[in-house]
Amino acid sequence: MGRWEPNARGRLEQAALDLYRERGFEQTTAAQIAERAGLTERTFFRHYADKREVLFGGSQALEQVFVDTLAGTPDTAAPIDAMAATLEAVAAFFQGRHEFARQRQSVITANAELRERELVKLASLSAALAGTLRRRGVEDPAASLAAEAGIAVFKVGFERWVGDDGGRSLADHLREALGELRLLAAGG
Amino acid sequence: MGRWEPNARGRLEQAALDLYRERGFEQTTAAQIAERAGLTERTFFRHYADKREVLFGGSQALEQVFVDTLAGTPDTAAPIDAMAATLEAVAAFFQGRHEFARQRQSVITANAELRERELVKLASLSAALAGTLRRRGVEDPAASLAAEAGIAVFKVGFERWVGDDGGRSLADHLREALGELRLLAAGG
Repeated sequence: MGRWEPNARGRLEQAALDLYRERGFEQTTAAQIAERAGLTERTFFRHYADKREVLFGGSQALEQVFVDTLAGTPDTAAPIDAMAATLEAVAAFFQGRHEFARQRQSVITANAELRERELVKLASLSAALAGTLRRRGVEDPAASLAAEAGIAVFKVGFERWVGDDGGRSLADHLREALGELRLLAAGG
Repeated sequence: MGRWEPNARGRLEQAALDLYRERGFEQTTAAQIAERAGLTERTFFRHYADKREVLFGGSQALEQVFVDTLAGTPDTAAPIDAMAATLEAVAAFFQGRHEFARQRQSVITANAELRERELVKLASLSAALAGTLRRRGVEDPAASLAAEAGIAVFKVGFERWVGDDGGRSLADHLREALGELRLLAAGG
């Protein structure tokens, strides 16, 4: 095999998810992932800093989508409408990733350390959104609440999408969750 | 000093908070806390399983207040009204604990492990609330969203109360946060 490995990152990702689900995250090593993917350990570490990054390597890009989209909505938009537009962009970010998201979620659900890491990721997203809203002139507590509410909608809609085998899109689930939040807050 | 130690728990709690803030949570041992409180290490372990429990020992009681109050609201109440009643009971739970909450928060903010533990506590509260709503016949995603929204209001209102030296009550801050959430969701 040559030094250039076609789709090495995708192969490592799939091998990692398979092993995490077969043996558990704790019991899997980077060397085993590389071997399963037919690649060297060195290639693994060219793509990922550690075995956890296979699951969380996209967090920064996701935060960027959240923040950039929110920052790009018109200043005149109500925070809830800005959040709705942001969630549409986030849904596009996950296009074609349903199967990855489903497998990833089952690994995370099975491991307390990974569940904590996921909570930290969501808290970091919320803090980034609140900061973006403050820079738009939204004051606290409204900025923090809009951010927390946006992440709550993302979390609930995302989990339902991951568990949905019926083919409804993430955008659909996020819109439904946002609609439910509006109804709830209106006392419905 | 006799075997019965007056207010041992309160003295240990204050000694722990003082040491955590002076030296950092990591650098403090149970023995040092006991010594600062003028008590034995054995007394410390009669009251707390470990030094982290000084900060999180109330979590279960708090979850009980959340769940019992929510379960006790009339089935006919809209989820948002049931949540408002629940937050009033939660505010009563923290009566007289502003100084403790303030000191505790500064310790938690300074330590990544404790911040994660706090996120786990809030996620557990949210899951308990969602379960309670489901038992009342609220379906998903509404149950999960109402729970997440309730915890968002609690988190934001609580943080503002902790940072508020003006003497406004927790109940006040929670009502304000809930009102802001209603405004936001209405597109305000």
